[in-house]
Amino acid sequence: MSFDDRQSLNLVPFVSVDDMMNVVLDIGIESCLSGIADYIAQDFARWELFDKTPRVAAHSSVGVIELMPTSDGVKYAFKYVNGHPKNTREGLQTVTAFGVLSDVDSGYPVLISEMTILTALRTAAMSAVAARALAPKDADCMAIIGNGAQSEFQALAFQALLGIRKLRLYDVDRTATRKCADNLAGRGFEIVECATPEDAVEGAQIITTVTADKQYATILTDNMVGAGVHINAIGGDCPGKTELHRDILLRSDIFVEYPPQTRIEGEIQQLDEDHPVTELWEVLTGRAEGRTSARQVTLFDSVGFAIEDFSALRWLRDQLERTGRYENLDMIADPDEPRDLFGMILRAGAKR
Amino acid sequence: MSFDDRQSLNLVPFVSVDDMMNVVLDIGIESCLSGIADYIAQDFARWELFDKTPRVAAHSSVGVIELMPTSDGVKYAFKYVNGHPKNTREGLQTVTAFGVLSDVDSGYPVLISEMTILTALRTAAMSAVAARALAPKDADCMAIIGNGAQSEFQALAFQALLGIRKLRLYDVDRTATRKCADNLAGRGFEIVECATPEDAVEGAQIITTVTADKQYATILTDNMVGAGVHINAIGGDCPGKTELHRDILLRSDIFVEYPPQTRIEGEIQQLDEDHPVTELWEVLTGRAEGRTSARQVTLFDSVGFAIEDFSALRWLRDQLERTGRYENLDMIADPDEPRDLFGMILRAGAKR
Repeated sequence: MSFDDRQSLNLVPFVSVDDMMNVVLDIGIESCLSGIADYIAQDFARWELFDKTPRVAAHSSVGVIELMPTSDGVKYAFKYVNGHPKNTREGLQTVTAFGVLSDVDSGYPVLISEMTILTALRTAAMSAVAARALAPKDADCMAIIGNGAQSEFQALAFQALLGIRKLRLYDVDRTATRKCADNLAGRGFEIVECATPEDAVEGAQIITTVTADKQYATILTDNMVGAGVHINAIGGDCPGKTELHRDILLRSDIFVEYPPQTRIEGEIQQLDEDHPVTELWEVLTGRAEGRTSARQVTLFDSVGFAIEDFSALRWLRDQLERTGRYENLDMIADPDEPRDLFGMILRAGAKR
Repeated sequence: MSFDDRQSLNLVPFVSVDDMMNVVLDIGIESCLSGIADYIAQDFARWELFDKTPRVAAHSSVGVIELMPTSDGVKYAFKYVNGHPKNTREGLQTVTAFGVLSDVDSGYPVLISEMTILTALRTAAMSAVAARALAPKDADCMAIIGNGAQSEFQALAFQALLGIRKLRLYDVDRTATRKCADNLAGRGFEIVECATPEDAVEGAQIITTVTADKQYATILTDNMVGAGVHINAIGGDCPGKTELHRDILLRSDIFVEYPPQTRIEGEIQQLDEDHPVTELWEVLTGRAEGRTSARQVTLFDSVGFAIEDFSALRWLRDQLERTGRYENLDMIADPDEPRDLFGMILRAGAKR
């Protein structure tokens, strides 16, 4: 009997933050990143099957709460995610997230999970999937500009999927760089802590920008980007927040997840609406070309898309049996007789 | 210190099906229905404050999964609900539901709950709130046509809010009528089990239609509805599913929750798009008239709207301290240092 058959449908497996940390520790973070990358690559290969609904956003003066649903016709997933920059000052997280995976045939939820850690993993896995298709084949050195919460995940994903061994780290706050270097110690990297962004990009075939500036910023200027480089731009991910000088965009071949979303949220919000971009799924399926020359500058303008969360939740669901890291939530009412919901309450009262 | 202050923000209270049954048993179902009715009335009085986003639906050949979000600017809520008519044949629920309430200022979820029982309660409370404004003042007798899962909740809500004491029950399946009558025994009703719908409506000042037919049906024909009656039409709630003959609609004053949704899902999908209807919130706030004469036929064309779920979740959240019927879910990652998510995992590993 399969895990799915043994699992009672009215009980929904819940993966807590603590469970998620244990999944990472049990399996190993590299295997988690590679596993999620495989699921993302599979799902991008089936791109046209997916419902690609825009996010449903509720804006307030201090932040936003969004629901990001998608479905491939077999499974359905949505992520709840908020963004509240002022939370940090109050000792709270800027972003919290959780997600649900459901079975389309029955409509029953089959997983509910924390998605702060899971989103960090899927974002890094997505970057590495894109870079595997776009970066120079011999790349072994990556600059990471911005050494906050996502930086270690990026480094480890690029090590696992592309064999990156040299890291050049830079952050406006040197304690962040120190933290990142300390956290990655003993994991086979040669790490250089850099004093300037110019220093950081020196000799790097891949440049990852993952800063948290909530505004138009210019982390990279045009002169810093040499021929043949792959830029993995993670930090520009909402209207009014970009990291790259426009001139870099104009001489790059630009690859995106989902153009309607990226044109609003990504680096390309700086460009004309009809500026040509290539959808990454087309590269992954061979319908479009990725890197075609050694001197080409490639740019993955990443904003994070619902299908990546879907892939991550699908991966996590498939780890439940192996790890046992979940608890069952009694979330779906299951009366013996569907028409007798009230009787179910009466019988529960009689048993007390 | 208030309950909110004591409750750690990274822990989200979860109300399971079992907890929800115990909330109903602890507080008493009449108090639950009255309490939810009060919250609905409060929220309908603030109607214009709310974000009224359409449902976000994912359709498949066998069913639909919907997210229903709304916010008043202080709290945010969404309900997940599916509809899969074929589930019954497989021993599953046609509809399952859960919901989340969040704090708009921080974006943090503050409640996750089962919503099968809670939706049954709020649907009945909503009907009674509408009938309190629209039904004849001296109503003491209600016909309930369709004696399935929602019927007892309707009876009890109308008893609690309007003092209904006489019930006339009819269902195509007499075992459903028997079940309903048995479940309501000893609760102060005078119950008549009727052999035909015509018999059921005899002498009733309020007619509740709550059948489960998944098609255009004619539960009530025009000759069955006498002058002065209030019709509480619950069962017609999706495109292609109605309960009333069109002629009844043409001589009724029609009251709805949210016209853009009701025109697609409600009884009024049978009418022209510009057929006049009154929004219930306008009646509740005194901006529009409800019942104006003893001979008028009033119709509440109910389809269920996100604000009612919001009200129900808000009410439930306010019962947590009193009932203690919840468990805390470790759903929000809370690193000591927000920029050190990876370090949080490392430290969890060091502690194992």
